[in-house]
Amino acid sequence: MKNIKRNTANVIIEVARQLFFEKGYEKVTTREISELAGISKAALYHHFKSKEDILFTIVNRASDELVNNMKQALAKNHPQNADLQEVIAGVSQEYMKTFFNNLDSIKILLHDIEYLKPELKEIILQKERENVQQLKDYIIDLQKSGRLKKYNPAALTFIFIGMMHWLYFWFDVQGKLTLSDMNEIIADVFVNGAGLRT
Amino acid sequence: MKNIKRNTANVIIEVARQLFFEKGYEKVTTREISELAGISKAALYHHFKSKEDILFTIVNRASDELVNNMKQALAKNHPQNADLQEVIAGVSQEYMKTFFNNLDSIKILLHDIEYLKPELKEIILQKERENVQQLKDYIIDLQKSGRLKKYNPAALTFIFIGMMHWLYFWFDVQGKLTLSDMNEIIADVFVNGAGLRT
Repeated sequence: MKNIKRNTANVIIEVARQLFFEKGYEKVTTREISELAGISKAALYHHFKSKEDILFTIVNRASDELVNNMKQALAKNHPQNADLQEVIAGVSQEYMKTFFNNLDSIKILLHDIEYLKPELKEIILQKERENVQQLKDYIIDLQKSGRLKKYNPAALTFIFIGMMHWLYFWFDVQGKLTLSDMNEIIADVFVNGAGLRT
Repeated sequence: MKNIKRNTANVIIEVARQLFFEKGYEKVTTREISELAGISKAALYHHFKSKEDILFTIVNRASDELVNNMKQALAKNHPQNADLQEVIAGVSQEYMKTFFNNLDSIKILLHDIEYLKPELKEIILQKERENVQQLKDYIIDLQKSGRLKKYNPAALTFIFIGMMHWLYFWFDVQGKLTLSDMNEIIADVFVNGAGLRT
């Protein structure tokens, strides 16, 4: 029984994600979501209190995935371990993979977070800050061990994030340039640009 | 007479920009705009056909400013002239300045471009492409003259843009880190990361 409930909730989430992504949150109704999910409106409200509750669930899951995958990527690429190029490329590869796997949700997050009530919006923003903070701590570790130049660590963190995140606005996953090419270039520029020979 | 007309149009634009920025395009009415501008709704419709027409004017002006200021910045920092650090810092400084001067309009552009009808949206997207293209041509020139590594030029262009643009999401103009500090770090990382000694 619990599995069936969970599956229906997931179907609602998937359908809503697609509709929010294509039409924008504001224009989608819970009637549309329930119709496309093949359930009654009552069934939808059995799982979610409101359309906002669905939006929050979508962006909250994506935020958790970004935070957790970044955490794993940083742990896998320990700042003391392999060479700098290898750890930076390892981190950016994982980050880009997670990012592109959650592209629909991230678009919804960037575009529709304003529709969340302040206390829900704050939960999401807190996870974004946590994500930036763990990357910043990692960069500070690399600076302390003399492997990255001592630029302002926040600046360096956002430069790294910016190089990757901007892919969102232009990268064509069908195009000739692959994510793996892109990852190599980003790691090269960052390591040569901010790295120190040890 | 023409000046008075132009001034009223500008007041409408300023008021609408502020309202769109604060509340989001969808939630603002032409009644609100005209009231805050201190004019009648009829006067507003004398200047603009619709709310969409006002939105288009705002994002179109910002797009023109981005394209033109980038053009000037690239011309001022000719790829053959000074040392690489100097030209790259010159370009990014101008870019960031224009960007932060138009921050409200750029937020509106990123957030509300979907509300423009396809033919108007296309005009804006075309200007964005033009802006990227002129920077890409500049980077290709630097590559041809052996001053930047021959990474995929589109990748390099977007890495450069990404480092600057991401400021939009995090940079606190009131904070301790200044735009001028940030500009220096970005130019350093880019030049050391992608530059070649000549």
